[in-house]
Amino acid sequence: MKKGVMRPGHVQLRVLDIEEALAHYRDLLGLIEVERDDQGRAYLKGWTEVDKFSVVLRQADEPGMDFMGFKVLNNTVLEKLESDLTAYGCAVEHIAAGELSGCGRRIRFEAPTGHRFELYAEKEQPGKWGVSNVNPEAWPMDLKGMKATRFDHCLLYGPNVEDTYALFRDVLGFDLAEQVVDPEGNRVAAFLTASMKAHDVAFIDCPEPGKFHHASFYLETWESVLRAADLISMTNTSIDIGPTRHGLTHGQTIYFFDPSGNRNEVFCGGDYHYPDHEPVTWKAEDLGKAIFYHDRVLNERFLSVLT
Amino acid sequence: MKKGVMRPGHVQLRVLDIEEALAHYRDLLGLIEVERDDQGRAYLKGWTEVDKFSVVLRQADEPGMDFMGFKVLNNTVLEKLESDLTAYGCAVEHIAAGELSGCGRRIRFEAPTGHRFELYAEKEQPGKWGVSNVNPEAWPMDLKGMKATRFDHCLLYGPNVEDTYALFRDVLGFDLAEQVVDPEGNRVAAFLTASMKAHDVAFIDCPEPGKFHHASFYLETWESVLRAADLISMTNTSIDIGPTRHGLTHGQTIYFFDPSGNRNEVFCGGDYHYPDHEPVTWKAEDLGKAIFYHDRVLNERFLSVLT
Amino acid sequence: MKKGVMRPGHVQLRVLDIEEALAHYRDLLGLIEVERDDQGRAYLKGWTEVDKFSVVLRQADEPGMDFMGFKVLNNTVLEKLESDLTAYGCAVEHIAAGELSGCGRRIRFEAPTGHRFELYAEKEQPGKWGVSNVNPEAWPMDLKGMKATRFDHCLLYGPNVEDTYALFRDVLGFDLAEQVVDPEGNRVAAFLTASMKAHDVAFIDCPEPGKFHHASFYLETWESVLRAADLISMTNTSIDIGPTRHGLTHGQTIYFFDPSGNRNEVFCGGDYHYPDHEPVTWKAEDLGKAIFYHDRVLNERFLSVLT
Amino acid sequence: MKKGVMRPGHVQLRVLDIEEALAHYRDLLGLIEVERDDQGRAYLKGWTEVDKFSVVLRQADEPGMDFMGFKVLNNTVLEKLESDLTAYGCAVEHIAAGELSGCGRRIRFEAPTGHRFELYAEKEQPGKWGVSNVNPEAWPMDLKGMKATRFDHCLLYGPNVEDTYALFRDVLGFDLAEQVVDPEGNRVAAFLTASMKAHDVAFIDCPEPGKFHHASFYLETWESVLRAADLISMTNTSIDIGPTRHGLTHGQTIYFFDPSGNRNEVFCGGDYHYPDHEPVTWKAEDLGKAIFYHDRVLNERFLSVLT
Repeated sequence: MKKGVMRPGHVQLRVLDIEEALAHYRDLLGLIEVERDDQGRAYLKGWTEVDKFSVVLRQADEPGMDFMGFKVLNNTVLEKLESDLTAYGCAVEHIAAGELSGCGRRIRFEAPTGHRFELYAEKEQPGKWGVSNVNPEAWPMDLKGMKATRFDHCLLYGPNVEDTYALFRDVLGFDLAEQVVDPEGNRVAAFLTASMKAHDVAFIDCPEPGKFHHASFYLETWESVLRAADLISMTNTSIDIGPTRHGLTHGQTIYFFDPSGNRNEVFCGGDYHYPDHEPVTWKAEDLGKAIFYHDRVLNERFLSVLT
Repeated sequence: MKKGVMRPGHVQLRVLDIEEALAHYRDLLGLIEVERDDQGRAYLKGWTEVDKFSVVLRQADEPGMDFMGFKVLNNTVLEKLESDLTAYGCAVEHIAAGELSGCGRRIRFEAPTGHRFELYAEKEQPGKWGVSNVNPEAWPMDLKGMKATRFDHCLLYGPNVEDTYALFRDVLGFDLAEQVVDPEGNRVAAFLTASMKAHDVAFIDCPEPGKFHHASFYLETWESVLRAADLISMTNTSIDIGPTRHGLTHGQTIYFFDPSGNRNEVFCGGDYHYPDHEPVTWKAEDLGKAIFYHDRVLNERFLSVLT
Repeated sequence: MKKGVMRPGHVQLRVLDIEEALAHYRDLLGLIEVERDDQGRAYLKGWTEVDKFSVVLRQADEPGMDFMGFKVLNNTVLEKLESDLTAYGCAVEHIAAGELSGCGRRIRFEAPTGHRFELYAEKEQPGKWGVSNVNPEAWPMDLKGMKATRFDHCLLYGPNVEDTYALFRDVLGFDLAEQVVDPEGNRVAAFLTASMKAHDVAFIDCPEPGKFHHASFYLETWESVLRAADLISMTNTSIDIGPTRHGLTHGQTIYFFDPSGNRNEVFCGGDYHYPDHEPVTWKAEDLGKAIFYHDRVLNERFLSVLT
Repeated sequence: MKKGVMRPGHVQLRVLDIEEALAHYRDLLGLIEVERDDQGRAYLKGWTEVDKFSVVLRQADEPGMDFMGFKVLNNTVLEKLESDLTAYGCAVEHIAAGELSGCGRRIRFEAPTGHRFELYAEKEQPGKWGVSNVNPEAWPMDLKGMKATRFDHCLLYGPNVEDTYALFRDVLGFDLAEQVVDPEGNRVAAFLTASMKAHDVAFIDCPEPGKFHHASFYLETWESVLRAADLISMTNTSIDIGPTRHGLTHGQTIYFFDPSGNRNEVFCGGDYHYPDHEPVTWKAEDLGKAIFYHDRVLNERFLSVLT
């Protein structure tokens, strides 16, 4: 949080059928359905998230990610970051307060990888779902499915990972927590964090700009990952891989697809990061183990199926 | 335990290099090394097993299983089962007490699947390893690797599964806990138990007789399965598949190979069985989900790599 | 299962208010409500139990246990055990089929500790709740509360533990899995099993006959024990002690009370037993550690609060 | 991290016998022994900590905490915080680089609760213990005992909690993550964080200044807490309470004492905090549930046994 960026605050995903998608994110992942806006977009959040929403689903003709937003400390920070982005040569777009229901004004920019990001300082804050802020119980009783606790991060594919890293580092104050480096010394993956988490957003090098690999949601335990895997099977949901552990970050994970083909991850555990930590390096020639620590080989899908 | 057969008591495996194999079963699986006999065979056991040994490794030119032994209640039961086997038309061979160090006399027979089995009533019983029988602590502190608690069962491939099931049921008093049935009504897999466990031995139909699929060892928790998976990766051991859950028995599992190519499983959980339970049936056309509950597809290795 | 007794099949408990009790056993423990009979008794079961019911609640003026029943292999066994009980000098009472809804005829006797037990061979067997017997899913989605999987055992207090042990051993074929022995060599607690479980029923010496300490229900994991503890707190249920581990059996456990004051346990794990295992012995002078392995002291309640 | 304070970096504890204490912190908690300095102080760290040490043991006539240190982002921050402390009216003391082996210069001050704190910007950084920074394995194989991953926080008792909170908030940039408030509106406990953790340091109101309640170490899972509890019993270590869950932060925990009577905690889980989160409030009249979520009553020891 060197420059006042706190956390990933939301992601807007394109889905082919809003009702099917809602059933997936609400009933299977266990996100809380919050609202439907007049554009027909559906808003959801994990139960531990204090802000109004973190996932927005928009019906569209093809799947993928519209944008990812980061919440910053306050409006002073927002203004400073806007001017810093502009000074850095990055065009910014203003989205008026209320365009996303309950969210303040947003500053949008495009990263060199071709992805759209947003910064904002204000969002309605109804508090955690199902537990009080006074004498809070350990968890709410009425959670569904995987009981995902929060939207955690996105992994994005595109070109110019190096420039994007520089932008996130120099302007937004992110740290490089982990990286994959090829034998020629090129950084082919960058895992970036503004906090103690091993990644708030990650990029993998790929010729095509603006591609979406997955949105990830946090679970509490390895047993929750097993339950998630069971639910994927019980609901005949398309699985990618897991349960397994990552080499990168060492999180325990499972990947699967929403009905539109967008990849989801639910995971638990994983390493922590502080700004004075050296980045962890994985060698590109050991990418199999870096991604899937147990199998030590990649499945083809993981690198090629993107939305 | 309808006819006095208590449990799988030992398995003798052929390995290409006894020292490499010992390192694998002792340091990685965490079995306790007990003894080396004058034939050079190595004896091991899981720490919760009260008898002297449960795994015997014999150096040979090709891997596989020599035989699997079941402990019966007492010598009266042993004599009765011997005469019942003979009456059933099954040739029995006598192995003198002491041929396996610390084990009483064994009655050996070959099942129609081509596997050799043994019955015995006596084995030295030094008690659990590392804990007293008076005021026992919860677990011994000096366990290694996966900390496997006991030899649990074998899965064997061969022809005449139906006749083998009949022999185990009618003569030895085993129950059919789970089965796989093809659309024509043929039983292509039989999971048999003499106790509350979902399987003490299991058979899958295959033209070649006497093939060994895996020996399985019990772990305490799903977290232990994760640690086992981590150790497989850390030690660069050949993995087959996992961590995952089975449909059959619903155990949580991981498969890997010893240095000779014999498949091992470590697992936890799984359903329990009583003699009045109807067998659970999986349809052969859903064999993928029956074997690997999360992926719902078989990997080719699982059906074809045998020793 | 040396003499054909398979398992604890049911327990009938007296409760002060049937609706409150139902809410407790159904909504908090997560037992499945099966039926209400014309006497007003409520029937429940754990979801993994194949028989129709395992818990019967009867409204009465004071709490406690009416009787505990064991299911035997078949009617031949039932007849044999009846004549063996009679020959042993134990008066037996016949309860007609249907007195408990869906249960066959029962043979009832009183143990020297003053508790009533029953044997029966037949009960309606609808199978596990919420999962099919063909291609069964890992667990049903609609479980409530603690998701207790099965009625597991009872702990009972009374005099003449030694005679009761002899009866269960000699007539019913139970094994002594664990015991507590005082410095004079008297057995003050006996944990008995007819199967691989560390106890199907247990007795602790106490001057007053026929006292009920607790009925115990099985959970899958230590994490389930944590969730159970959380639910006890969330529902403002009276807790006794836990989460903790027992020394005896090494199970992981929590104790609490139903609204009538009957003690319940939910637990997971625990040692396994085979008939050739020597009983585990705990010294009475170390009873604190034997009962509560971590605290190593008893709370007064555990020995004195009985129904 | 609003003002550049990153994390708790070390705690120096007084112990009555340095060898006994070392055995406790190294063999039971599983901290890594790093060095012994020429004053006879012993240095240790958790295996995930990248800096040289986090725990310093000093032999003395009575137990307790000498000081707790926080690492800041860099020397610029250190200088700024020093001048801010002075401007705030807080006397600062300079400790030369090297006084703690491998640690840069430290700025020491006393909080109104009577505890000594330090800030520093530099410490030798050998990296995590037992794993490489390139292609790191998931965990090192040779960990001992509880395998504590890191020094996490301290809970301290003293007067003037309100003034101390103001100092940590206004000068050091800490947030109030959780609090206990009495019916008159007085804040009797303040849990403070400079990061995403639910607490980096916590204060409870008490007339006597400078008292030490516990130092806490992080474990990975609830199963690790069980193993820790088992080890406490196996090693006949003095237990305070647990395994249980806290209401405050919802962490899963166990408390015990080092051989000198200093209280330790090992815990896992717990809520996360961001700077825009409202503090969680527990009512002082529900302090039992706030501290021990399951029992909902305090044990007397927890409030009165301090060092």
